[in-house]
Amino acid sequence: MSRTSNLRPDMARLWATLARSAEIGATPRGGLRRLALSQEDGEMRRQFQDWCEAAGCTVAIDAVGNMVALRPGREANGKAVLVGSHLDTQIKGGRFDGILGVLAGLEIIRTLNDHNIETRLPIAVVNWTNEEGARFEPPMIGSAVFTGAKSAQFAWDRTDKDGITLGAALEEIGFKGDAVIGPQSYDSLFELHIEQGPRLDDQKIQLGIVTGAFGVRGFVVEVLGETGHVGPTPMPQRRNALVGAAHVTLAVEEIGWLLHPTGGKSTTMRLKAEPNLLGILPDRVEMTCDMRHPSEEVVQAHLQMFLDRIPELEEKSRCRIAVRESWTYGGISFDAGCTALTRQAAQDLGYSHQDMLTEAGHDAMHVAHAVPTAMIFTPCEGGLSHNEAENVTLADIEPGVNVLLRAVLARAG
Amino acid sequence: MSRTSNLRPDMARLWATLARSAEIGATPRGGLRRLALSQEDGEMRRQFQDWCEAAGCTVAIDAVGNMVALRPGREANGKAVLVGSHLDTQIKGGRFDGILGVLAGLEIIRTLNDHNIETRLPIAVVNWTNEEGARFEPPMIGSAVFTGAKSAQFAWDRTDKDGITLGAALEEIGFKGDAVIGPQSYDSLFELHIEQGPRLDDQKIQLGIVTGAFGVRGFVVEVLGETGHVGPTPMPQRRNALVGAAHVTLAVEEIGWLLHPTGGKSTTMRLKAEPNLLGILPDRVEMTCDMRHPSEEVVQAHLQMFLDRIPELEEKSRCRIAVRESWTYGGISFDAGCTALTRQAAQDLGYSHQDMLTEAGHDAMHVAHAVPTAMIFTPCEGGLSHNEAENVTLADIEPGVNVLLRAVLARAG
Repeated sequence: MSRTSNLRPDMARLWATLARSAEIGATPRGGLRRLALSQEDGEMRRQFQDWCEAAGCTVAIDAVGNMVALRPGREANGKAVLVGSHLDTQIKGGRFDGILGVLAGLEIIRTLNDHNIETRLPIAVVNWTNEEGARFEPPMIGSAVFTGAKSAQFAWDRTDKDGITLGAALEEIGFKGDAVIGPQSYDSLFELHIEQGPRLDDQKIQLGIVTGAFGVRGFVVEVLGETGHVGPTPMPQRRNALVGAAHVTLAVEEIGWLLHPTGGKSTTMRLKAEPNLLGILPDRVEMTCDMRHPSEEVVQAHLQMFLDRIPELEEKSRCRIAVRESWTYGGISFDAGCTALTRQAAQDLGYSHQDMLTEAGHDAMHVAHAVPTAMIFTPCEGGLSHNEAENVTLADIEPGVNVLLRAVLARAG
Repeated sequence: MSRTSNLRPDMARLWATLARSAEIGATPRGGLRRLALSQEDGEMRRQFQDWCEAAGCTVAIDAVGNMVALRPGREANGKAVLVGSHLDTQIKGGRFDGILGVLAGLEIIRTLNDHNIETRLPIAVVNWTNEEGARFEPPMIGSAVFTGAKSAQFAWDRTDKDGITLGAALEEIGFKGDAVIGPQSYDSLFELHIEQGPRLDDQKIQLGIVTGAFGVRGFVVEVLGETGHVGPTPMPQRRNALVGAAHVTLAVEEIGWLLHPTGGKSTTMRLKAEPNLLGILPDRVEMTCDMRHPSEEVVQAHLQMFLDRIPELEEKSRCRIAVRESWTYGGISFDAGCTALTRQAAQDLGYSHQDMLTEAGHDAMHVAHAVPTAMIFTPCEGGLSHNEAENVTLADIEPGVNVLLRAVLARAG
């Protein structure tokens, strides 16, 4: 370890690399719009591939566009230590969410090259396809195909709002590959990410050692009313689906405040009304809601609390209300061994750090089901993310990148 | 009056004419989708023109597609008695809303032709463009251009959801005419319409003598919040625009129940959220609301009550809430002389009838500002309208058509 114990990434180079990424899909308000498999995502992917190849890596691309850049190790058939995250963004997203994790992985490769350091295990940098889910739903689809939780066919069949399939979008930008990328080839995954919440920034803590993930419940609520003329239809004869939706929204919000003291939240994030025209009482609303809490049991109990309230919401609004679809993720612990390496690195380097759970969804949460996984959080300004104003400073991320480098080297040997 | 006192329309012929109309834009569930200036509307307009020309009328079309079929009177330069309504429908509309008023006008012409009756004043049947406002907003645009309340240019510049202008849509179906159609040429307007509310049907009253219109306030509410990640963003740090919208919806609904005992109502009818995606707190909602009451003063006071509640709704939701746009219509009385003719006809024919106000918007409400105007309502089943299940029977409409015929003849001499 003597050669590597003082090894430091070139933070200025990483910062310049992040700045180049921030040009591709830049928005006027300083954010990024780089939707999965858009022309902008294609340009960023080609830039990433060029950088990786210039760093001596071979870049493999699988059937759903996951990209893995490999730096060989001493063990010819050794499983690789994966480092990475995603390069796609929200519609009005920021410059660091996901991107930091991929480009920090690239910086690790470059740093090892600078010092001619050979590792025992190969090191690979991954860019997962469609983490955000802003164009194709569900989110985190590339990592779900990686672990086998979803098939490539399922991913290809997802459509965006214009009816374009994920498969067609992959072909359009030339990123439908034929490499087989799966858990069998990887030793571990390390994902560095901005926190996307305010805890580290508020407390001026340099690092989060992410030990696991909040339990998450997503669900789609359908509210059914009846159309009618907004003029003559008397109040008692109405079944206005938007009134039903308002009662649902406030019930979901109330449960959020019940969850808040123990760190949870509950959200109505999307609502579509039909026919949504002047002069007509709307007869159908579809809403997408989300509850999160550190405890699986607590989030499940509060989802049940919402379900139990539906008859009351129906009575108040004279609408029919039902949960049409739901999903679960999170509620997992990351690998104790990998996580211990990140915690040890933070201690060795003298960085302030705290154990925490991730409240957001990350590819690491899928991968953790198949490969030993760890996550590291850096602070982000005001906790603001999924927003063009998302921001971090070089000083904010330096501890995270150093810990990532050290933990990956410890694992790769 | 001896020749005309026993004159009756041919209700079977009118019923068959309505049935033919019900084929053009028919929906699988028995309604109509005949959006203003769509291909279906074009087909219906050509059918209407053919019918009118076969009945010996000349059909004039103005710059915004209003169609007027003229049956000359004895007075060569006499102002015409207008009869009519609209042939366009909602997206999921019914077979009678508007259509009855136009085709009953046609039936009057045919009946007069059958009996070789010449009137002193000309009689004209009108089909107003874009009454519903389901494709182009605002609604009732053809009659607004007729009175000069809006310019033809304003109408042409309206766009539908695909960005097609009303002017382009008129040209596409060949109904941008060059006739000048304005109040100066018309003596009066009689509009027969289904009630679109349940009062006549509930009380088994055969006719409504419409003496005026509810006061109506429409307004667009903008709710501004802040985007953020639905996972890590703590409840107290959120400004979820959908939560603000829910509070607005319930405040508007509460005011509806305050207005209800005296016949009023208040509605949230449309809501659009942005960015409306998974994983993101929405930062902007635009809602369209509507308040109606028989009294102008009462509706204005309740709109003010809503405006006064905005600071409380802002505090509850941590969002900014503002009324961005508003409009007023109704709050008018129809012409006493024309209305007396309809009431007298109902009495002479022995039909049960009651004076009432219209709660819906109608072209007659625009025209009444420029030309003496009367409206007659027929019952409609369950008061259901703006719905594919909208229905009337031949027996429901016969009194209205008879009264229309008699009142128009009395006016035209």
